[in-house]
Amino acid sequence: MFTVVAERINCTRKFVKAATEARDAAFITEEVNKQAEAGATFIDVNAGSSPDAEMGNMIWLLSVVQAATALPISLDSPSPTVLKAGLEALDGRKAMINSISLEEGRAETLLPLVVQYKTDVIGLCMGAGQRLPNTADERCEFAGQIIAVTRAAGVPDNKVYIDPLVQCVSAEQTQGAEFLLAIRKIHAAYPDVHFCAGISNVSYGLPQRTLLNRAFLSLAIWEGLDGAIIDPTDKGVMAQLYATLAVVGNDEYCMEYLTAVREGMIV
Amino acid sequence: MFTVVAERINCTRKFVKAATEARDAAFITEEVNKQAEAGATFIDVNAGSSPDAEMGNMIWLLSVVQAATALPISLDSPSPTVLKAGLEALDGRKAMINSISLEEGRAETLLPLVVQYKTDVIGLCMGAGQRLPNTADERCEFAGQIIAVTRAAGVPDNKVYIDPLVQCVSAEQTQGAEFLLAIRKIHAAYPDVHFCAGISNVSYGLPQRTLLNRAFLSLAIWEGLDGAIIDPTDKGVMAQLYATLAVVGNDEYCMEYLTAVREGMIV
Repeated sequence: MFTVVAERINCTRKFVKAATEARDAAFITEEVNKQAEAGATFIDVNAGSSPDAEMGNMIWLLSVVQAATALPISLDSPSPTVLKAGLEALDGRKAMINSISLEEGRAETLLPLVVQYKTDVIGLCMGAGQRLPNTADERCEFAGQIIAVTRAAGVPDNKVYIDPLVQCVSAEQTQGAEFLLAIRKIHAAYPDVHFCAGISNVSYGLPQRTLLNRAFLSLAIWEGLDGAIIDPTDKGVMAQLYATLAVVGNDEYCMEYLTAVREGMIV
Repeated sequence: MFTVVAERINCTRKFVKAATEARDAAFITEEVNKQAEAGATFIDVNAGSSPDAEMGNMIWLLSVVQAATALPISLDSPSPTVLKAGLEALDGRKAMINSISLEEGRAETLLPLVVQYKTDVIGLCMGAGQRLPNTADERCEFAGQIIAVTRAAGVPDNKVYIDPLVQCVSAEQTQGAEFLLAIRKIHAAYPDVHFCAGISNVSYGLPQRTLLNRAFLSLAIWEGLDGAIIDPTDKGVMAQLYATLAVVGNDEYCMEYLTAVREGMIV
């Protein structure tokens, strides 16, 4: 099973921001339903970057999203306070904290909530001072440090989703390969840990980004990526996902691929 | 550099067969030019499966192809006699023999020609009695046996292109992964040897084959595939090729990708 964290309910998107500010529940409900029908595993909810409005937006969005679907929810915020309030607003369903990292204090503040609410958690391979990793080894080292912290807090490995942080190949051409090798290394070292990456950064600064993103998604899946933050209503991306799972042998009898083709979910 | 063996001049294709039988040089010239413009490295020439007509067709096709392009030619035939006559009909340009295998007598007959004409040669991972390999290890073993034979004949490793033989995932779902791991193993064991695979078999028996073929091409390139028998006029396949080379870091400054986008060679 591939974990699809569906990214559309995000107030940095213009129409979602406007609908949220207008408290347009019909619009948000439609966004949720489209993603659920397209194969979402989690509905990510990001209530925007305005610190003043974020808390109110998050609580309202969670009420609408929970009314629309029984799917698990990924709470996506830079603010531990908003994440805590979000967890308290949930109806007891499965949830994910998006995200912790190695920034000072962040994991220490959030992991007690992860344990208390038995949530899943995304661990960004980002060092103190928001330092980004460059090599596969550095990503694996950051992942190891995050996993040491989650284990110490009592979080089982299979509730941790590592994001090894994709960087763009236009600036440094080795970044794609370093990310892929990081997946291979982390997967080998921590076989119970999952992954959840945003992959579209790989193509930043280049034309026809979809081509690059789709190829890169395939490669990451082959190396062990078992989750991604994507838009499941993008049939091209979902086609790449199902096709890749079929050719690498992670789709028994190609049944999921065949079903997706038959139901017109991919192009 | 990725080796694109362009597959369209093949008399098992209906229109090519008809044009060849009618000695329609304009049609064949157009097929050659389209492939050359689209990025062919070699023009493959397959003069069909009818033993009576093949020799005459091959000689005629080679005269037309050589008049149309200066590109190297891949001579594609089950018949050593036809391959020998084809080599004699070439104007001294670079050529490739497609193919040898471990079938009794085949390599022994063909390798003296490979040496005499200094051609490249495709080595199919097919055992005696046309036995197909199943696992990565078996493919690697067959490749090793072929390379032992080419080395004994005096052919340098960098003129050998191994085809580890793709089999379809619809019959056995591990076949895709076994092929990919074979590329990894053979590449590690014989770093100077090239690859040239037909990859579309992976999707045999499944719908929307292009999706599967494109994903699989990306994965094979990441594992070390540096050549394939494809139709370069298929902009989708070429898009996958250029996009993959860019994201894995085999395209300095993404220049080939950017050029391909700018020139409208990919979609």
